[in-house]
Amino acid sequence: MSDSITIAIDAMGGDRAPAMVLQGADIALGRHPGAQFLLFGDAARITPLLAGLPRLTEAATVHHTDEAVADDAKPSQALRSGRQSSMRLAIDAVRDGRADGVVSAGNTGALMATAKFVLKTLPGIDRPAIATIFPTRRGESVMLDLGANIECDAENLVQFALMGDAFARTVLGLVQPTVGLLNVGSEDLKGNDAVRAAGARLRGGMTPVRFHGFIEGDDIAAGTVDVIVTDGFTGNITLKAIEGVAKLFSESLRASFHHSLPARIGYVFARGALKKFAARLDPRRHNGAMFLGLAGIAVKSHGSTDAFGFANAIGVAADLKLNGFLQKIGDDLARLNRAPSAEQSAAL
Amino acid sequence: MSDSITIAIDAMGGDRAPAMVLQGADIALGRHPGAQFLLFGDAARITPLLAGLPRLTEAATVHHTDEAVADDAKPSQALRSGRQSSMRLAIDAVRDGRADGVVSAGNTGALMATAKFVLKTLPGIDRPAIATIFPTRRGESVMLDLGANIECDAENLVQFALMGDAFARTVLGLVQPTVGLLNVGSEDLKGNDAVRAAGARLRGGMTPVRFHGFIEGDDIAAGTVDVIVTDGFTGNITLKAIEGVAKLFSESLRASFHHSLPARIGYVFARGALKKFAARLDPRRHNGAMFLGLAGIAVKSHGSTDAFGFANAIGVAADLKLNGFLQKIGDDLARLNRAPSAEQSAAL
Repeated sequence: MSDSITIAIDAMGGDRAPAMVLQGADIALGRHPGAQFLLFGDAARITPLLAGLPRLTEAATVHHTDEAVADDAKPSQALRSGRQSSMRLAIDAVRDGRADGVVSAGNTGALMATAKFVLKTLPGIDRPAIATIFPTRRGESVMLDLGANIECDAENLVQFALMGDAFARTVLGLVQPTVGLLNVGSEDLKGNDAVRAAGARLRGGMTPVRFHGFIEGDDIAAGTVDVIVTDGFTGNITLKAIEGVAKLFSESLRASFHHSLPARIGYVFARGALKKFAARLDPRRHNGAMFLGLAGIAVKSHGSTDAFGFANAIGVAADLKLNGFLQKIGDDLARLNRAPSAEQSAAL
Repeated sequence: MSDSITIAIDAMGGDRAPAMVLQGADIALGRHPGAQFLLFGDAARITPLLAGLPRLTEAATVHHTDEAVADDAKPSQALRSGRQSSMRLAIDAVRDGRADGVVSAGNTGALMATAKFVLKTLPGIDRPAIATIFPTRRGESVMLDLGANIECDAENLVQFALMGDAFARTVLGLVQPTVGLLNVGSEDLKGNDAVRAAGARLRGGMTPVRFHGFIEGDDIAAGTVDVIVTDGFTGNITLKAIEGVAKLFSESLRASFHHSLPARIGYVFARGALKKFAARLDPRRHNGAMFLGLAGIAVKSHGSTDAFGFANAIGVAADLKLNGFLQKIGDDLARLNRAPSAEQSAAL
């Protein structure tokens, strides 16, 4: 990639920050040679680490601050008293146009609240949502909301469908992604009021979204649709449940291969195939949850990820910028006929 | 097991009924030699199949009916016009004391509605719930509700906790199971109103339940608690999502072993270990969802299961009867101080 891009990095966020963050930025730089990085955090800790990363040193500037948002800080607390935190200053850089996007592996709630406060939501979006990409039988799908909005009405769900559609077109490169609404069955009458009303609106063709209909839990891994829309309560629990099962499965499999001598011999032969299998389902490959609906690009990395995972989160931010995500979602919102939406909201 | 037990079987429910059902009953009979079966369905189809199952023929009586509930029948329709259906007659046998429990692999909605109408709910239970058992890192856990109640208030969730506790004591043989409430975080303030209020009541010690607190999605597979309580919308989607991921994982693993010659050789050596791995996670081993909260034992088998899976569903019904489930949950409900419950309900 030759396009010039600048990413603001919260160097102090994440379990193994700042070392993991800087190594991740260095890996990302290898993939995006034209990129520039603004590193926000404790210069006394960052500068010595940069000494071992000459390529990153060339492409980065360090912006010192003593403050960092604690992992257990409440969002309101981070917002009120964290104005000089590494997270806040990195987000400010996006608002001021000094950076094209921000990436942090810090406190999720604080990042969401601060990004919303500083960057503001896009016109036509009531509430931002958290989205991620994950592997399916067919390839990759996008899912949102993953926990930003615990209770959602039909209007919120329709807006999530629009945001997810623009996200899938940008990051997965799809021309017209299919969108499904997560429910307990596929019939029109299934589900709660919000899901039924959102389904009716999306089926009605009043949005630019290609609506597949209701989908069920097993459609997630099957890859039945490109974009899975749900409320933040269900989305958060479902995604974590899936991660938990994948982890149990991997551990059980590993234990099986240590169980007996024949199994160990088998492992030696099958190692190559098993590594390909593991690579495809590696959660680090799908690290980087995007805060959608904001007037700026903000990506959250898992706090426990390593440099490889953090580099992928930077990659998500870069893709969003280079493929014109904000332009695409702006166009979608402009195409959306607002009149039925307002009428529907009033009826709910 | 030497205790005498009689199970009413809907012989016409399930994708491969009645053959799969009868073979399943025969397998179950091998495990529970004293059991008796009442087989409801089309005698012209059942009787020829019994000719090949002499052991079952000895232990079973056939109760002919021409009618069966269609897979796509609405619950209200099945209730209104299905009074002579194999499903309805099997449930009637439990109500009349001719059977200790009913097992069906037929239409879930119809079975739930009919069982509730015929058997009635237990005193102190507003709404029945669907529960199942599944494998975790630690062993096995119980989860409910899996789709009977799409929208739940705090009182419903507290009742689910009581029912799940009695179910885990009966079927998993635990003395004092731990109970967790599924949420988006472990802090008291997380979640929606119903979850927060139910958490407060369960923490308050006004129920006989040993409450662990809020749990997150990844706690399901980790086996953090013995009983996972959630509303039917979240529970249905989460369980199906888990099943979908497990299926994707198994298929990807199988494909990996066919990928190359070394991988195939490896499979030959590792086969024994892999079979043990697959057996532990075999969904047929955990077939049989219990309708909790009814004044009778009703178990739903997956419609697509085979004879082995159906036999396990019969095993769940037998365990519930032999271990005195209805007595245990009755005792729990009696122990529960109803006063705070009523007060709490009024406040919601």
